[in-house]
Amino acid sequence: MRFDRPIALSELAARIGGTVQGDGSVLIHGLNEIHRVEEGDITFSDHPKYIAKALKGRASAVIVNTVPDGHSGKPVIVVEKPFDAFTGLCLAHSPWRSASALISPDAQIGPGTVIRPGAFIGPGVRIGADCLIHANTTINDGCIIGDRVIIHSGAVLGSDAFYYKRTDAYRKLNSCGRVVIADDVEIGACCTIDRGVTADTVIGSGTKMDNHIHVGHDTVIGRNCLFAAQVGIAGVVTIEDDVILWGQVGVQKDLTIGRGAVVLGQSGIAGDLEGGVTYFGSPVREARAKMKELALVKQLPDIIRELKGGK
Amino acid sequence: MRFDRPIALSELAARIGGTVQGDGSVLIHGLNEIHRVEEGDITFSDHPKYIAKALKGRASAVIVNTVPDGHSGKPVIVVEKPFDAFTGLCLAHSPWRSASALISPDAQIGPGTVIRPGAFIGPGVRIGADCLIHANTTINDGCIIGDRVIIHSGAVLGSDAFYYKRTDAYRKLNSCGRVVIADDVEIGACCTIDRGVTADTVIGSGTKMDNHIHVGHDTVIGRNCLFAAQVGIAGVVTIEDDVILWGQVGVQKDLTIGRGAVVLGQSGIAGDLEGGVTYFGSPVREARAKMKELALVKQLPDIIRELKGGK
Amino acid sequence: MRFDRPIALSELAARIGGTVQGDGSVLIHGLNEIHRVEEGDITFSDHPKYIAKALKGRASAVIVNTVPDGHSGKPVIVVEKPFDAFTGLCLAHSPWRSASALISPDAQIGPGTVIRPGAFIGPGVRIGADCLIHANTTINDGCIIGDRVIIHSGAVLGSDAFYYKRTDAYRKLNSCGRVVIADDVEIGACCTIDRGVTADTVIGSGTKMDNHIHVGHDTVIGRNCLFAAQVGIAGVVTIEDDVILWGQVGVQKDLTIGRGAVVLGQSGIAGDLEGGVTYFGSPVREARAKMKELALVKQLPDIIRELKGGK
Repeated sequence: MRFDRPIALSELAARIGGTVQGDGSVLIHGLNEIHRVEEGDITFSDHPKYIAKALKGRASAVIVNTVPDGHSGKPVIVVEKPFDAFTGLCLAHSPWRSASALISPDAQIGPGTVIRPGAFIGPGVRIGADCLIHANTTINDGCIIGDRVIIHSGAVLGSDAFYYKRTDAYRKLNSCGRVVIADDVEIGACCTIDRGVTADTVIGSGTKMDNHIHVGHDTVIGRNCLFAAQVGIAGVVTIEDDVILWGQVGVQKDLTIGRGAVVLGQSGIAGDLEGGVTYFGSPVREARAKMKELALVKQLPDIIRELKGGK
Repeated sequence: MRFDRPIALSELAARIGGTVQGDGSVLIHGLNEIHRVEEGDITFSDHPKYIAKALKGRASAVIVNTVPDGHSGKPVIVVEKPFDAFTGLCLAHSPWRSASALISPDAQIGPGTVIRPGAFIGPGVRIGADCLIHANTTINDGCIIGDRVIIHSGAVLGSDAFYYKRTDAYRKLNSCGRVVIADDVEIGACCTIDRGVTADTVIGSGTKMDNHIHVGHDTVIGRNCLFAAQVGIAGVVTIEDDVILWGQVGVQKDLTIGRGAVVLGQSGIAGDLEGGVTYFGSPVREARAKMKELALVKQLPDIIRELKGGK
Repeated sequence: MRFDRPIALSELAARIGGTVQGDGSVLIHGLNEIHRVEEGDITFSDHPKYIAKALKGRASAVIVNTVPDGHSGKPVIVVEKPFDAFTGLCLAHSPWRSASALISPDAQIGPGTVIRPGAFIGPGVRIGADCLIHANTTINDGCIIGDRVIIHSGAVLGSDAFYYKRTDAYRKLNSCGRVVIADDVEIGACCTIDRGVTADTVIGSGTKMDNHIHVGHDTVIGRNCLFAAQVGIAGVVTIEDDVILWGQVGVQKDLTIGRGAVVLGQSGIAGDLEGGVTYFGSPVREARAKMKELALVKQLPDIIRELKGGK
């Protein structure tokens, strides 16, 4: 997420009770978790294995608990508990606010947009023109919705990221990202779109989702995609334009599905998929290869009989 | 959907700016998409491959963009864009209306029926006697519910069909069908039952659904079926009486599951299933055959070793 | 469920129009369905196959329609229709009550707890301190929630058990159990947690659930478990501490998953799983064994070619 104004690294360090090593006058424009970090951002790392990676990455500064020997260049803030410091910053910049009405007085709702009864429109929400927000939907604080968007009943936008650090128990990383829905999107009944933990969860223009679809935090979905019912997409996934996912497909976190890929029902996706190809299976393979495999397995009793007879 | 009164084909043609070929005095009783069309209906087709099929089908008239050489008999309306003309007719006859209260003043609710707080009951809804509509359910415009029906919290009845025509973008076919729930049905929490795109989505009497079930548009489900949690059923499916679907089963569109079929958990159904049989797998096979296949695959390392040793 | 005060067996018999055989002065402390019955409880059985089992079990008394020859010892109530008698008792002790407000006046809500707009808090609900109950959630009658619990929008707690007896039609066993959520639990958007049919559905402290998860009746989940989106867990399941279930996993009823087990996405669990092991597949196997099996199946065309060539 981006700060309202750039903040000097030394000021951030003071806020979280840390010590700057390097140039404290560097201006920080926002904060982001390691998967979605950009130049100008501050991020964090508390594990020796990842600190070096974070220091080499795109962040302009990193909150750490220890500085590798010989490190120079990128400025850091050293604190005892980087996760605590970072999630504290997230909380301070979280869009969650006090809500006392179903439609928050400060929500911005465009002309021609219809909000049906029982829908909750949280503080800081912006909805474009000619949208239809059905009964009993939940549009949580800070969500941004374009023009001509349809959200069906029971859908929830802007629930928290499912993101924890396990120590003795699971500790929550507070979500300060948003949900951003482009123009001409349709979201089915009882869909859930989590907000980014620090960046945005984005649904591209013209994309259509059937009912009961889950989209995890910080996932970015392209334009004119079509997702059938009960598809589940984890966090930090990138889905390019014109992708079709049929019913009950599952997509694991932190991967990319290329433009125009088609994934048949109940498939499970555990790694990047090239665009323009049709896939099937759990785990997925190219669909014809998977179909041949299924046919072969079905013929196995005959094949084995033949092979044994040939002995 | 059926019109309030029969309408002459010539009148319909005038409404959509089309030209009649054939008998314009034919009375049209309703409109339906090609999968659920019946005698008396008008339907549409805009693809050369399907126009001939539509003209041979049960419709009393068809909206087309071109008439095959030598066609005679069934009257047609010729327009430039049949999809646009048809979806315009759907919109004009859609049950969606303006709703400003959680319980619409014109909804009909039978004696002994309890509506718990936060439930939305849309315009034109009819609910029978002795029903229990739990908190925060959504019963959208024009849904019809029988007697002694229980709808659990978070369920959504009458969301739009997931039905688009892809051109440069996905264009929505407006839904004008209904959801019709017979007596003694129970619908679990967070289930979604889409309305028919032009016909009705029907749940037969005594059928029980667990939570998180999706039922697509124009699907017709028989009596005394039992569906476990997270089952997903696409559109235009026919499920006969006494069918059991266990948890997370997926059913593709436009197929029939015969009476008394039982489908084990996580199975995927891509074609018609004969009744009275138990099935398993994705894609499904008869359950014992599938179990044997799974056992054989597990033994493959031993079998291959034996075969190689036998060389 | 436990009665407010112990009730003599003879008094219960009078209420349901049955006849005591054995000691009618025995005090009954509660009622429970056969899977969760404990000493002090009364249960029921109406099938010859299970009556002997019920009589040997932990119940202090059993409602039956016939007493096996030679039975002595455990007292019984004989009625014509044990299911009807038992479900009548369940109904009489059900926590469901009349609710006319979104937040029931008799609900107890701890200090620091925030209830956002549109949430339904039913009669008899008790919520601890510093909880966050998001907009449009449903916390049904009699649910018990600990401290620092977060419930996301669209979630439903305390929907009825999916539990029927099939005769000519499906007859519902009325639910009189509760949902009990311990401290520091997080429940994702559009999750559904059914109440126990007669016992409690329990979520242990520190357990975190992503969106769209279903938990069936009388299921008991341990501490610090992590369940990803769209997991479905049937009724009467026991999940020990520190279990991880990844997305879209399905768990069948009446089984136990041991402490620290990890189950990969889309797996299907049909029997007990030992703790401390990673599993994959539908049905599940130990994950590495399953991965080897998948690799072998992929190589089958080559293996078969080689074997045939060797003839």
